[in-house]
Amino acid sequence: MPEEAWGHWGKEDERGALNYIGTQEVMRATRLVKTGEVVSLAQPLSPETPVPNHRAPMQHFMQRDGGDYAAGGKRPGGFQFAEDTVVMALQFATHIDALCHAWHDDKLYNGFPSTGTRSTTRAVRCGVEKMGPIVTRGILLDVLDDGQPLAKGTAVTRERLRQSAERAGISVSQGDVVLIRTGWIETMLADPHYYDGEPGIDVEAARWLAEAGVAVIGSDNFAVEHIPFPQGSVFPVHQLVIRTYGIPLLEGLVLAPLAAKGVSEFLFIATPLPFIGGTGSPLVPAAIL
Amino acid sequence: MPEEAWGHWGKEDERGALNYIGTQEVMRATRLVKTGEVVSLAQPLSPETPVPNHRAPMQHFMQRDGGDYAAGGKRPGGFQFAEDTVVMALQFATHIDALCHAWHDDKLYNGFPSTGTRSTTRAVRCGVEKMGPIVTRGILLDVLDDGQPLAKGTAVTRERLRQSAERAGISVSQGDVVLIRTGWIETMLADPHYYDGEPGIDVEAARWLAEAGVAVIGSDNFAVEHIPFPQGSVFPVHQLVIRTYGIPLLEGLVLAPLAAKGVSEFLFIATPLPFIGGTGSPLVPAAIL
Amino acid sequence: MPEEAWGHWGKEDERGALNYIGTQEVMRATRLVKTGEVVSLAQPLSPETPVPNHRAPMQHFMQRDGGDYAAGGKRPGGFQFAEDTVVMALQFATHIDALCHAWHDDKLYNGFPSTGTRSTTRAVRCGVEKMGPIVTRGILLDVLDDGQPLAKGTAVTRERLRQSAERAGISVSQGDVVLIRTGWIETMLADPHYYDGEPGIDVEAARWLAEAGVAVIGSDNFAVEHIPFPQGSVFPVHQLVIRTYGIPLLEGLVLAPLAAKGVSEFLFIATPLPFIGGTGSPLVPAAIL
Amino acid sequence: MPEEAWGHWGKEDERGALNYIGTQEVMRATRLVKTGEVVSLAQPLSPETPVPNHRAPMQHFMQRDGGDYAAGGKRPGGFQFAEDTVVMALQFATHIDALCHAWHDDKLYNGFPSTGTRSTTRAVRCGVEKMGPIVTRGILLDVLDDGQPLAKGTAVTRERLRQSAERAGISVSQGDVVLIRTGWIETMLADPHYYDGEPGIDVEAARWLAEAGVAVIGSDNFAVEHIPFPQGSVFPVHQLVIRTYGIPLLEGLVLAPLAAKGVSEFLFIATPLPFIGGTGSPLVPAAIL
Repeated sequence: MPEEAWGHWGKEDERGALNYIGTQEVMRATRLVKTGEVVSLAQPLSPETPVPNHRAPMQHFMQRDGGDYAAGGKRPGGFQFAEDTVVMALQFATHIDALCHAWHDDKLYNGFPSTGTRSTTRAVRCGVEKMGPIVTRGILLDVLDDGQPLAKGTAVTRERLRQSAERAGISVSQGDVVLIRTGWIETMLADPHYYDGEPGIDVEAARWLAEAGVAVIGSDNFAVEHIPFPQGSVFPVHQLVIRTYGIPLLEGLVLAPLAAKGVSEFLFIATPLPFIGGTGSPLVPAAIL
Repeated sequence: MPEEAWGHWGKEDERGALNYIGTQEVMRATRLVKTGEVVSLAQPLSPETPVPNHRAPMQHFMQRDGGDYAAGGKRPGGFQFAEDTVVMALQFATHIDALCHAWHDDKLYNGFPSTGTRSTTRAVRCGVEKMGPIVTRGILLDVLDDGQPLAKGTAVTRERLRQSAERAGISVSQGDVVLIRTGWIETMLADPHYYDGEPGIDVEAARWLAEAGVAVIGSDNFAVEHIPFPQGSVFPVHQLVIRTYGIPLLEGLVLAPLAAKGVSEFLFIATPLPFIGGTGSPLVPAAIL
Repeated sequence: MPEEAWGHWGKEDERGALNYIGTQEVMRATRLVKTGEVVSLAQPLSPETPVPNHRAPMQHFMQRDGGDYAAGGKRPGGFQFAEDTVVMALQFATHIDALCHAWHDDKLYNGFPSTGTRSTTRAVRCGVEKMGPIVTRGILLDVLDDGQPLAKGTAVTRERLRQSAERAGISVSQGDVVLIRTGWIETMLADPHYYDGEPGIDVEAARWLAEAGVAVIGSDNFAVEHIPFPQGSVFPVHQLVIRTYGIPLLEGLVLAPLAAKGVSEFLFIATPLPFIGGTGSPLVPAAIL
Repeated sequence: MPEEAWGHWGKEDERGALNYIGTQEVMRATRLVKTGEVVSLAQPLSPETPVPNHRAPMQHFMQRDGGDYAAGGKRPGGFQFAEDTVVMALQFATHIDALCHAWHDDKLYNGFPSTGTRSTTRAVRCGVEKMGPIVTRGILLDVLDDGQPLAKGTAVTRERLRQSAERAGISVSQGDVVLIRTGWIETMLADPHYYDGEPGIDVEAARWLAEAGVAVIGSDNFAVEHIPFPQGSVFPVHQLVIRTYGIPLLEGLVLAPLAAKGVSEFLFIATPLPFIGGTGSPLVPAAIL
């Protein structure tokens, strides 16, 4: 496996590490199901769901509702219904970052020019609609500190990941979705400082996962990597993982209910909404135990 | 199984027929996977995605993009990124109807008053956030007419469904998600008259499925049932299926690629976004073969 | 002039006290212009413009911009352009409350049932589109306390208004737009507690203005009336002024620049956007000196 | 008066020809008022208001309404209220084009680089918030053909404007807002082909107005200039008027009611909403007769 994924799946590839998931990986994953229990890893979505300062909260409007009928609205043939509309950032709550979301030097993953992402065109390359449904083995790496949530800024190192996997008796392998539990979201989500910083993986930990051929990296924080960043760098894990290795990130995961099951590997499913040219998608990843 | 589902899962139940899916049904479904192929059943989402006249098209805005950097935007630490926001009806494209979406006589499924669905509160009962991820056996009932799409208004009867199941060598059973292929979406989606009417199941066909204990009914049209309706009724299948039996509907499915695989049963997954009080959710149902 | 305005301009009237402005009032007002200076009384509009907690900030999206061209966008015939979209509450920043905005006992001004205002229909009675452009005499009543802004909760009484008018040598008369300066907005707008309370007129002051036949009452705070309210009442001035007298309110005015001119009467203009069934409209009231 | 306005009001000027309106022009205009009648020149705003194909219709959502109370919503202290939110393009219905709306060769009016208009910053130069309220003499140039609306594509020439002014006994002068009536909007607004083309001024007519020092040019069509354009050019009047002369355009005016008054000059008012960095603003221009 090359250190860099560019060209690895052809010059026109826009799916990156998701290509590691083939039918073999799907088969392997479905065979992990032992109890049939399904665990959602997603936050509920509402105007109260936290967002970082530079984004607006979700808005949710009813266009027709029970109040209309209570106020005398007609019900032809007795039929009544309700419908609604949302205004929502695609990088909202539990979501996946598409490969067009982050880059440097004006080039996206696989060398596509970032000038293809515009107000008028949206992302012509590496948009979230290129991903397709994700079905593969999921593994949970719990890196809590003796059961305590990690503190803001804590760097989760490669060694820490390795030890966590060892404790769980699993090894990270090609096509896996790796979910890293720091405890940040359940400790801090209700806190106004949730978005001020977070514990998360560092660059070497990210590289270790990338070199193992993982398909997706996720965490129970808002940006997967630790914040504050190492001095002089800005979102270095995003840059490395998304652009160099073509690995999408899963952010805002709710992992405590999964951790409570005591299961480290499972059938993982996640289906990004195929917004054409979108930079990501809210979604509901789930573990099937 | 009672003809009516009200009270069947308790007075406070808001999940209806999804309760038919237990861990046994999940286990049974995962064992159907034979090749590991994953087939998306969803339409892509964009401002061009068709909507009925009474709803507005989706809007999709970039808030930061490659154009900003081309125009001289700063890139602290070299980091560049893009993000975006959508304005979108929840009953949009390929989506699921929550149990709060349709009713009559001011009562939702299980007797909840429809006055709980308001502009200010949204749906306090039977919102889409109550559903959870859906993982179960999916079955495809292809009711095309000798391979030809059904004409607008064609009623797909119980007998037609029964014959289709027989041809496929499967029988509808409790906890299944049943997908009915009429050919309407691929024939008509690009046509301005797509939403003027459609072929679809009639009330007796719906009742037959409901009495078999299906968890969800879906189709490759915009409202599952045939339109025009039988004289004197308005969305009779919605009324019966959603309100009486507590069965959510899946609308706007793309079924031709699945039909092309020649497989009639499969592991079905669909994960509605948990909008608190939402009437439905765009989603990406998928078949794992 | 009756104490209550219902029926005063006919059973179908939806314009209330704006009816006091006839061509005579317009003529009288235009004759007040002495220097030709025009002073805007509006806040600028942006995602940073403060909103109360229960409303979402404005969002403003570019759909085409200079970045698109910098990124290589085509310019047929050399032509380049930019365009944009906003998501905005109508009760936002400097705005006018339409007569459908506030009521009690399920009846709007003039007895129209409030059930005519629904998600599906919006306000069928007393919507902001019924107002038309407002052109009349404006008068500024400065009620600062020796030049100091009033404190939160201060009730501006009828006597205080009367004295202010006396000092200015003017008397409130029929068809006037009365602007009351408390100093709240310039003291507090940048403060996160801006919306927690405010100085403003009390019920008797409001009644005094209403009985004088004013067409509109405005102030440099967010709700015209003092908050906290007198014990046991909720928005009593809104209830009295809007519903009983049919007088629209102007909220969020910027009055310091006008006060600095030392002019107490002027030609006042304000043109609500005619949103059909809207509860109000952001606008730019202006004084022509 | 220079042929080009760049630099005419200083290198930092962002208001262009609106600078022609000084206090003298305001005084002159207010003296034109003879009857006190006020005529709105704006279209009503609703989801039904026509928009060109590349823009989305306005959306208008109630967030609280009479239906909520009919459904049992609480009314603390008896108080009831309604509020709402719109999603709306700023180039919508009757609106003004800010000087950042149109340009060529990557330079806006007065030489500002168009790269200052981005998704992240919006227009840092020549945004609609720089305009301020517009109060000046308005003149109506009726160019109908013997009372008949002009046909699609008809070029309204300088000579035609000159003759219309002559017939009305007025001459275009510095600081005027000139409103050109073609009859297009009342003939065609309800027609699905309204936006396919239009009659309007040609480049020479525009130059004639610009050289006379007009402050704003408006018309009762969607783009002021005739469409189809002369071969080889794209929006040539926009390019000349907005960028070269710094003259904002008023589009989508409703002029028939004004024309019916038989008055050719009047006090004109229009107050663009000050969206920071906005490319334009819906507004309600009005004539005071």
